Amino acid sequence: MNMLLLNGPNLNRLGKREPHIYGNETLEMIENRLKSLASQHGFDLQCFQSNHEGELVDRIHLAEDEGCDGIILNPGAFTHYSYAIRDAIASVAVPVIEVHLSNIHKREEFRHTSVLAAECEGQIAGFGSYGYEMAFYSFLHRFKRGMENG
Amino acid sequence: MNMLLLNGPNLNRLGKREPHIYGNETLEMIENRLKSLASQHGFDLQCFQSNHEGELVDRIHLAEDEGCDGIILNPGAFTHYSYAIRDAIASVAVPVIEVHLSNIHKREEFRHTSVLAAECEGQIAGFGSYGYEMAFYSFLHRFKRGMENG
Amino acid sequence: MNMLLLNGPNLNRLGKREPHIYGNETLEMIENRLKSLASQHGFDLQCFQSNHEGELVDRIHLAEDEGCDGIILNPGAFTHYSYAIRDAIASVAVPVIEVHLSNIHKREEFRHTSVLAAECEGQIAGFGSYGYEMAFYSFLHRFKRGMENG
Amino acid sequence: MNMLLLNGPNLNRLGKREPHIYGNETLEMIENRLKSLASQHGFDLQCFQSNHEGELVDRIHLAEDEGCDGIILNPGAFTHYSYAIRDAIASVAVPVIEVHLSNIHKREEFRHTSVLAAECEGQIAGFGSYGYEMAFYSFLHRFKRGMENG
Amino acid sequence: MNMLLLNGPNLNRLGKREPHIYGNETLEMIENRLKSLASQHGFDLQCFQSNHEGELVDRIHLAEDEGCDGIILNPGAFTHYSYAIRDAIASVAVPVIEVHLSNIHKREEFRHTSVLAAECEGQIAGFGSYGYEMAFYSFLHRFKRGMENG
Amino acid sequence: MNMLLLNGPNLNRLGKREPHIYGNETLEMIENRLKSLASQHGFDLQCFQSNHEGELVDRIHLAEDEGCDGIILNPGAFTHYSYAIRDAIASVAVPVIEVHLSNIHKREEFRHTSVLAAECEGQIAGFGSYGYEMAFYSFLHRFKRGMENG
Amino acid sequence: MNMLLLNGPNLNRLGKREPHIYGNETLEMIENRLKSLASQHGFDLQCFQSNHEGELVDRIHLAEDEGCDGIILNPGAFTHYSYAIRDAIASVAVPVIEVHLSNIHKREEFRHTSVLAAECEGQIAGFGSYGYEMAFYSFLHRFKRGMENG
Amino acid sequence: MNMLLLNGPNLNRLGKREPHIYGNETLEMIENRLKSLASQHGFDLQCFQSNHEGELVDRIHLAEDEGCDGIILNPGAFTHYSYAIRDAIASVAVPVIEVHLSNIHKREEFRHTSVLAAECEGQIAGFGSYGYEMAFYSFLHRFKRGMENG
Amino acid sequence: MNMLLLNGPNLNRLGKREPHIYGNETLEMIENRLKSLASQHGFDLQCFQSNHEGELVDRIHLAEDEGCDGIILNPGAFTHYSYAIRDAIASVAVPVIEVHLSNIHKREEFRHTSVLAAECEGQIAGFGSYGYEMAFYSFLHRFKRGMENG
Amino acid sequence: MNMLLLNGPNLNRLGKREPHIYGNETLEMIENRLKSLASQHGFDLQCFQSNHEGELVDRIHLAEDEGCDGIILNPGAFTHYSYAIRDAIASVAVPVIEVHLSNIHKREEFRHTSVLAAECEGQIAGFGSYGYEMAFYSFLHRFKRGMENG
Amino acid sequence: MNMLLLNGPNLNRLGKREPHIYGNETLEMIENRLKSLASQHGFDLQCFQSNHEGELVDRIHLAEDEGCDGIILNPGAFTHYSYAIRDAIASVAVPVIEVHLSNIHKREEFRHTSVLAAECEGQIAGFGSYGYEMAFYSFLHRFKRGMENG
Amino acid sequence: MNMLLLNGPNLNRLGKREPHIYGNETLEMIENRLKSLASQHGFDLQCFQSNHEGELVDRIHLAEDEGCDGIILNPGAFTHYSYAIRDAIASVAVPVIEVHLSNIHKREEFRHTSVLAAECEGQIAGFGSYGYEMAFYSFLHRFKRGMENG
Repeated sequence: MNMLLLNGPNLNRLGKREPHIYGNETLEMIENRLKSLASQHGFDLQCFQSNHEGELVDRIHLAEDEGCDGIILNPGAFTHYSYAIRDAIASVAVPVIEVHLSNIHKREEFRHTSVLAAECEGQIAGFGSYGYEMAFYSFLHRFKRGMENG
Repeated sequence: MNMLLLNGPNLNRLGKREPHIYGNETLEMIENRLKSLASQHGFDLQCFQSNHEGELVDRIHLAEDEGCDGIILNPGAFTHYSYAIRDAIASVAVPVIEVHLSNIHKREEFRHTSVLAAECEGQIAGFGSYGYEMAFYSFLHRFKRGMENG
Repeated sequence: MNMLLLNGPNLNRLGKREPHIYGNETLEMIENRLKSLASQHGFDLQCFQSNHEGELVDRIHLAEDEGCDGIILNPGAFTHYSYAIRDAIASVAVPVIEVHLSNIHKREEFRHTSVLAAECEGQIAGFGSYGYEMAFYSFLHRFKRGMENG
Repeated sequence: MNMLLLNGPNLNRLGKREPHIYGNETLEMIENRLKSLASQHGFDLQCFQSNHEGELVDRIHLAEDEGCDGIILNPGAFTHYSYAIRDAIASVAVPVIEVHLSNIHKREEFRHTSVLAAECEGQIAGFGSYGYEMAFYSFLHRFKRGMENG
Repeated sequence: MNMLLLNGPNLNRLGKREPHIYGNETLEMIENRLKSLASQHGFDLQCFQSNHEGELVDRIHLAEDEGCDGIILNPGAFTHYSYAIRDAIASVAVPVIEVHLSNIHKREEFRHTSVLAAECEGQIAGFGSYGYEMAFYSFLHRFKRGMENG
Repeated sequence: MNMLLLNGPNLNRLGKREPHIYGNETLEMIENRLKSLASQHGFDLQCFQSNHEGELVDRIHLAEDEGCDGIILNPGAFTHYSYAIRDAIASVAVPVIEVHLSNIHKREEFRHTSVLAAECEGQIAGFGSYGYEMAFYSFLHRFKRGMENG
Repeated sequence: MNMLLLNGPNLNRLGKREPHIYGNETLEMIENRLKSLASQHGFDLQCFQSNHEGELVDRIHLAEDEGCDGIILNPGAFTHYSYAIRDAIASVAVPVIEVHLSNIHKREEFRHTSVLAAECEGQIAGFGSYGYEMAFYSFLHRFKRGMENG
Repeated sequence: MNMLLLNGPNLNRLGKREPHIYGNETLEMIENRLKSLASQHGFDLQCFQSNHEGELVDRIHLAEDEGCDGIILNPGAFTHYSYAIRDAIASVAVPVIEVHLSNIHKREEFRHTSVLAAECEGQIAGFGSYGYEMAFYSFLHRFKRGMENG
Repeated sequence: MNMLLLNGPNLNRLGKREPHIYGNETLEMIENRLKSLASQHGFDLQCFQSNHEGELVDRIHLAEDEGCDGIILNPGAFTHYSYAIRDAIASVAVPVIEVHLSNIHKREEFRHTSVLAAECEGQIAGFGSYGYEMAFYSFLHRFKRGMENG
Repeated sequence: MNMLLLNGPNLNRLGKREPHIYGNETLEMIENRLKSLASQHGFDLQCFQSNHEGELVDRIHLAEDEGCDGIILNPGAFTHYSYAIRDAIASVAVPVIEVHLSNIHKREEFRHTSVLAAECEGQIAGFGSYGYEMAFYSFLHRFKRGMENG
Repeated sequence: MNMLLLNGPNLNRLGKREPHIYGNETLEMIENRLKSLASQHGFDLQCFQSNHEGELVDRIHLAEDEGCDGIILNPGAFTHYSYAIRDAIASVAVPVIEVHLSNIHKREEFRHTSVLAAECEGQIAGFGSYGYEMAFYSFLHRFKRGMENG
Repeated sequence: MNMLLLNGPNLNRLGKREPHIYGNETLEMIENRLKSLASQHGFDLQCFQSNHEGELVDRIHLAEDEGCDGIILNPGAFTHYSYAIRDAIASVAVPVIEVHLSNIHKREEFRHTSVLAAECEGQIAGFGSYGYEMAFYSFLHRFKRGMENG
């Protein structure tokens, strides 16, 4: 089974930006950790980060074409205004889980609203990079349950 | 005379996405149909689709530089927030007609507002891919009337 | 097949009112042009204009009773507040297309919202009286497609 | 170490209410599953459900007095208006994680806002009863990291 | 058949509070009158009043468990903010009718909105305590029609 | 004593429109049923329906001039915007009860507000055509109580 | 020179409705008083009242066709929502002055906004029926000044 | 009898500012014209203009102390935010009429609201400096009627 | 004479919660201090605290039944949404004074609005626990003045 | 120690204005009463009233320069819009207490918001002129506590 | 050529107020620095500061009368509500540049809006007292360009 | 020292678009002018323009990596919605100054809000291309002051 870890704008700055808040871990380190975890459970996990809205839309389309089984998406600031990504998620059958490192619901007012949520399975916010693992486990749980039922 | 058919994000998924709603026609088929129609009336119609806001802005600028006489634009989700595309339309003298496959005014609240409309000649919504033909005919009508008056 | 061209308040002033904007064509001239067009395609097109909301509601009911196949409706100012006309459209099975001479989405704020759109097939705005023809052609296209499928 | 699983109004109806949506699992079954899981990791997990806002406030106070290390809270409908529970969370030092069975961000407008989020560590929504386990694992991860650092 | 008359906060003050507005009838007198009326039509009507939101939620759950056939609910001030009661109504199959002694739609702005209405069969407002009888008769009418059809 | 049953726009379509929702009963059948009921209680009930706001205003004025003792009003879509009808109700001393077939408080947002309520005695919503009978009985109750007190 | 005194819905109830507020003067008496006043100054003043929005629109159109030099308009409740009358005023060259008997800016919130004001010369509110005379004098002043300048 | 003509900020610029809009008449010329008019009718009219909110408040208080019978007030921009002047008007028994040279209801959005209107007798807008005369005549009418009744 | 000191949710945590803000004084200490003060002035002061909205409603009702002369109420978070407590205050003749330890008008936006204020005599905010004494003294002053006048 | 009693617009009308509401006490009488009270406790209390926003700003600045220890401020209508006074309070170190004679939170909507509150220590509303004494006592309490701690 | 440096409320406190934010420079020092700068470039720069809105309005009028060529205006808190100053700027032909010491667009919400901007040439915010120099240089640049073109 | 001049969407059209408003200067000419200016003061100024949001985000990140000391940013239409650019600015330590050619605060409503301002040092609007020079000088001033202090 295949999964995709998709990160949006400015997440390439992780580890370089405000380490007292986000820790010293870079995005590369997080991606490697998730790849190992996936691999341990027999999954192939691809990783992609972009600051370009269009590339994220393209990548979501590609995910479906490549037979991806689930997308873990941290949309960064696009969470709050990218109706293009919303429509991209709606245009594919692949389930998407929204992950936010910080608890967006306790930050500035504009961060309380996700225009993507309407097309996502669930949302995880406020657990730092461990949120990606939580999303991974939820897919794992989902696939197992699917297999038990199917 | 030259025209441009410009499609925004996720419209490359036409025919693949929710066929019971949007039909089985792909964007390529629609573009070919429009090209034939244009050609029958002695027009050169170019086609361009992108999921990237910046490429759409660039293409609108290029249209003016190439002497394009009219743009048929389906901005997809950018309809609702891309002030950059709005300013791009304002920055060229080429007339633009906004086309939406579905009747955006009866869908979710956020789809009722077009931030582009203020800079477009007219809007056509809810006629599926036939809306592109309607836009084409309106340009045809406009050019004829212009020639009669001019 | 039968169609109805329905015009709302103040459209009886066309040709008399601000000719530099709306042209010199009166509503009667437009209605005659549409009737000819319909007739050329084997349709019977009836025309009705009223400044009275209630008469428009009555006429929409009558359309269904008379077996009308499609209504081309320019609701004038009722577009923005007549929930009675909205309910009238909902109360009949006849498909309705909303036409506006000007691009209402670039005029005063209150003109951006159509309370009727939720019950209409599609909307055409900003093409002057040619918009009525576009609506006619869309019905033509719709009927043809229906016959091909049916 | 001690944890508390706190469920708000109407969650006592789980398993009885709309089983096609929420499954056949009752709250008791979920609580037992979570207790086992906690026990396997050497935790003592207490469970409490109430339809009474005041009892939830009391229970949060008690949690601190009993030396609880973390609260997994599904506030049900109180999520959207109980400033009393918000202040209760603020009045204790125990970290709280907000869990919602459904993805509240894609349901009715009023469910998009959590008045509690401002005082919670994180939020998990849309994973059914597996969300409680995710919350549990996040506390586990947090405690481990704390021990490594401390 | 069984019915429940459920009254929310401050309705225990009826007859004591502003008699020039609400009359001299106490809640007990109203409950007795309704019980007699129900009894005359072969119904068992239970009565419950509470100033505690949680007790109303509990009582709604209990109603379903006891096989109640209809609830006449005057939610008092909870009408305007108790999403917990809204969810309680949604969690049971028992039909609920909302009754308000005064015409809440002509009082202060905040009283115009019922957060419960979305889950109730109908609403009666402005008829004083006679509104309870109207609700009773509507259930009677409903049951009769059900028996005729069933 | 005299009463008036007044129905607004589109209610003449009852029985013809969406029978699975509104039943097969036409407005004429309902009016006859209400007339019989009134007659049984010694009342003269007149009935009037119009799709024209102005005719409803005229009829309300006439009611007072004819010595009408109570108006049962289903204003249809005018509920939500006809300040002219609101002022008409305010301009007569005849008490008016607002009836809605469906529970308007659980439908589209714009249907939640009645601009007429501020001038009406009470409101009944969600009981189908039985709501008219409930209004009738409430007037009956009111008149009886009035006679007992007077 | 010709003038038109145009009164909207419910103004036919003047003198019958709330005499302690509006006085005992009927609309007929006011119209006669204005006619005399106009006649003294060599004007022909026509009077028209209707509760029907459409008739007011028709009458405004007619005014222009008849060469009317000024309209004194009390739109009643239509002030606050009739965009049809607004467009009617915009569709004629005749200047219109808005008169309100009461000071609408100190009454209910919805009465503070006139959707017609954008197309009227001026507004007079709060002077009872004397406001019509003030409007008449302002037209007189305007015509005199026009003659002096012209 | 005594009257006061009170002008607010920037009205001292009349005649100097945008003469194509406001004419060439200075405030002094207007004040003199009004004084003559008042004198002809046996009134003493005082005039005061200030750009200082506090001086206008003081002057309103003084008006009552001096036995002023009516204030003609053009509050200029204070119309839209000076709650201090509103309270000053409320603190005296002298009736106040609000005059605006332009039709404020057709200008920028913020000019549509008068925070003073709630405490004024009436409002006149859009008649240029002739509006002051209209206000004067309305006081005259009021005093006459008062004498006839009293 | 009798008084009641009523404290709402989370105020039982005083002295334990954020001592650097609220000081080390517990609610018990404050209550004792107030009781002494009352006793010195010949009053009987009862104290009650609850985290349960319903218990506060019950206690307010009881206050009237017991002949209480004044309630000092710190409603805690209920200030901002408990319309049930608002109605409870309205349902009794006992005067109520609202006290807030912190200056709620300079904290989060939602704390600026008190839904209870409309039914309270006055409000004191921002004086810590001394605010209770201020409320006490204001009752004392009120009673004295009452005795002098009565 | 020195204190300042500062009163804003229209408070010079106390005793003259609506005595049935505000009593017969003039501002001078209140100021004298407060001066006596201050003097009894060894304070020097200065009094200043102005209808001019700028003079209040100046006086607040002066207070700091003169070593004032506390300001009791009744800002009158400036409460609701004077950001200049807000900034003046922020620009001095002297603590300010906001006093309102009436309970502004139960009056017109615009009076519910104080733009000054964000820079004030506390707020007292609804206690008539006794509110000034309460403010005085709160300063007294504050100074005593300060001395005990310092 | 002549220029005016105009400062609004509380700017006389510069250097005394929060020196860690605004620095130790007093307004006098800034004014002197600007005068020197102006003098070096052959300009006469006058300076004026007031906490009184009316004096600022008067000073703007005077500027035009004195032949001032440009106004550098720091309106302080009046930025956000003084429509009187807005109209004053509109009433003169002198160009005005708005300067704010802090970046008002990143402070409290109410500081994001300038009601004056609609009548000003440009806005400079966030550069401390150097912003006045930037405004001066922009006028210099403007005058030079004017001379080159003129 | 190094600086970056960054221009957003449609600014590549400068000089080609509406020359009567924006002048005949192209972006290239402006960039060259700024480079010369920088060079005269010993700075290295790089220039970058893009219509692609992602490229602007990338370039901001790169600026920090290259040791850039200050960014002059004209974000074009992204000013109003690009939270991605906002977060990019927040993710680097380089100070950013926002420049707008026109005075955005006097144009369409949506242009009054900058979502970037919260992360920028200052804002300059309405000075045409001279605004870039003003930004440059402000950095120069800042660096000098920094050197003097450091």
